[in-house]
Amino acid sequence: MAPAALIHATYRIRALPDEAERIARFIAYEQTVELPPAQVSDPRILDEIVGRVQSLEPAEPGFFHARIAFNAALAAGQLSTLINLVYGNVSMYPGIRLQALQLPDSLLAHFDGPRYGIDRLRQLLDVHDRPLLATAIKPTGTAVERLAQLAHDFALGGGDIVKDDQNLVSDDFDGFRFRVEACANAVARANRSTGGNTLYFPHLAAAHADLPRYAEFVRGIGLRGVLLCPGIIGHDHARDLAARFDLIHMAHPALSGALTQAGDNGMEFGLALGTLLRLAGADISVFVAPGGRFRFTDEQAASLAHACRESLGLLAPVWPCPAGGMDFERIAPLCATYGKDTVLLVGGALLGHDADLARGTRAYLDRIRGAMES
Amino acid sequence: MAPAALIHATYRIRALPDEAERIARFIAYEQTVELPPAQVSDPRILDEIVGRVQSLEPAEPGFFHARIAFNAALAAGQLSTLINLVYGNVSMYPGIRLQALQLPDSLLAHFDGPRYGIDRLRQLLDVHDRPLLATAIKPTGTAVERLAQLAHDFALGGGDIVKDDQNLVSDDFDGFRFRVEACANAVARANRSTGGNTLYFPHLAAAHADLPRYAEFVRGIGLRGVLLCPGIIGHDHARDLAARFDLIHMAHPALSGALTQAGDNGMEFGLALGTLLRLAGADISVFVAPGGRFRFTDEQAASLAHACRESLGLLAPVWPCPAGGMDFERIAPLCATYGKDTVLLVGGALLGHDADLARGTRAYLDRIRGAMES
Repeated sequence: MAPAALIHATYRIRALPDEAERIARFIAYEQTVELPPAQVSDPRILDEIVGRVQSLEPAEPGFFHARIAFNAALAAGQLSTLINLVYGNVSMYPGIRLQALQLPDSLLAHFDGPRYGIDRLRQLLDVHDRPLLATAIKPTGTAVERLAQLAHDFALGGGDIVKDDQNLVSDDFDGFRFRVEACANAVARANRSTGGNTLYFPHLAAAHADLPRYAEFVRGIGLRGVLLCPGIIGHDHARDLAARFDLIHMAHPALSGALTQAGDNGMEFGLALGTLLRLAGADISVFVAPGGRFRFTDEQAASLAHACRESLGLLAPVWPCPAGGMDFERIAPLCATYGKDTVLLVGGALLGHDADLARGTRAYLDRIRGAMES
Repeated sequence: MAPAALIHATYRIRALPDEAERIARFIAYEQTVELPPAQVSDPRILDEIVGRVQSLEPAEPGFFHARIAFNAALAAGQLSTLINLVYGNVSMYPGIRLQALQLPDSLLAHFDGPRYGIDRLRQLLDVHDRPLLATAIKPTGTAVERLAQLAHDFALGGGDIVKDDQNLVSDDFDGFRFRVEACANAVARANRSTGGNTLYFPHLAAAHADLPRYAEFVRGIGLRGVLLCPGIIGHDHARDLAARFDLIHMAHPALSGALTQAGDNGMEFGLALGTLLRLAGADISVFVAPGGRFRFTDEQAASLAHACRESLGLLAPVWPCPAGGMDFERIAPLCATYGKDTVLLVGGALLGHDADLARGTRAYLDRIRGAMES
């Protein structure tokens, strides 16, 4: 595999000491030729196609780290193929977790990455020195006028991004149009009265064939972004939709727990919700913050925030967006932990903070500004 | 929620006895309104939107089974929305596994299901009384003439379905066309010489926006089916592609281990690779057979085969397709275990069985016929 660009994938393997090497070799063959070593004799295939175990180190008791090199050409510059190459089949083998991924620049060059990312979104919002405040309109089942009112009041209070809850789904296009227009108009009205730039992101959810029409409508009425669920609709699909219609891509982590919470299987948190989402062109990566109603650890969150912003070829960084059971008292520590290039997504706690949502939003923004000054 | 059709979802919850009820209630709220109970007071939303914990039973020590009813209207007749509704957010909560799903006929009526399934595929092949024999051409990196020769020889031996290995990916459309035409022509030549009906299924892999063109080409040259990876490209996307171009949908389980092998998270095996794939219109569901190089249990495989064929509204059954480290000696027991409505996918073992692949294929088919007669 002499001059080829390489992908380096590190797997955490659950294995007895005498089987670790066999399993590492199994991964290298399974993910490339999908044949047992005895059946691969062509020197060119052994040289250019079969993965190479580059190192195997003991990790915590009962586990090993195997670093495997793959010819980057096998990813064919395609996101779906890359996912398949590094984790497709071995996802089914108990006790193999994808821990880290190093991608060569020649492969990264196939990906546009976040098209808005941190800088362009700041420009759109004209907010430069603090974390952004986002909220979700919900619950589903609420009358559209009430949802539009919530969006309006958040915008009136100066909030940055109001998105649909990912459970807000319409049965058909007319229902979608009615709801989205009402909320978009409400936010525009508030923006005119404040001179502000609050953005509203509807959730694009429909049968597959209808999604382009929905996206086109959203862009057509002047909205700048959408909420997508790449873990459900497919990462490369989400990438394509946002790029084709020039929409800011806020990625919701629905179903991502199947990867991140898969015990000894699955993918490391930052890899699943940072690196993969940047390749999928996400501009904002929503994740559940430690300390909320989910049970993520500070370490997992730090790994995610790092993966969102670390150097990755020429790809722009993506906003980490902690969410899930946030409240007013946690704003200052969250600002300290994640820093200014963060979107704080506050749902229920913001709705419950003050009967006047505009005033509650201002209180949260003051809290954020205060945290950044201290 | 009086007259509404209901989805019944059963979750396996890892919990101490005194927290099980809270977690069950958490699921019911999280998956619908995504708000804490204290913030939901609208009687209509409580009645029509919030999930209902219908039962909570102790399971094995440390675990409970919670059965939760959701208003089926919340799935909006969309596969992506259904997945989101039953497992989107709680996938991220450690120790919640989706164990079973009962879907009402009114929801199932939105799905066409397998368009070929068992009956129509048998008609196309004119094979009525035995399991089907399938193989994969591989490894990637092999010269196209050699891949075409393998496809040809399998067809010459009377094999039923030859598919691309899911690692066979081309960099561009011209490479795809060249490879697929060569293999299609080789299989057609063998069919003319045998009078047989061997089918060739290419793997549809490309950047999202290119896939329709690839599918159209495949159908245009008269091929009847494709291999798709719904776990990577998205279930509803795979459904749409196969339906739009009237292609038999052979579903590869790449990345599905993130669901099935997720320890105390994820989804039950038959649900992920049976029920969900039927909703995604798969005609054949490839899974790793117990006893092969992966470590699936007989119980998991039986659950999958059952989910592939059990009554599910008006949806046709899907072929279970055990694969992965199959060999000649396992053919008879596999036929006995899974019965005649099964596709046996034999890759490396068939290539290694006889230097003459046509002869090896005949030997496997004889073995299958013998197993069905005994």
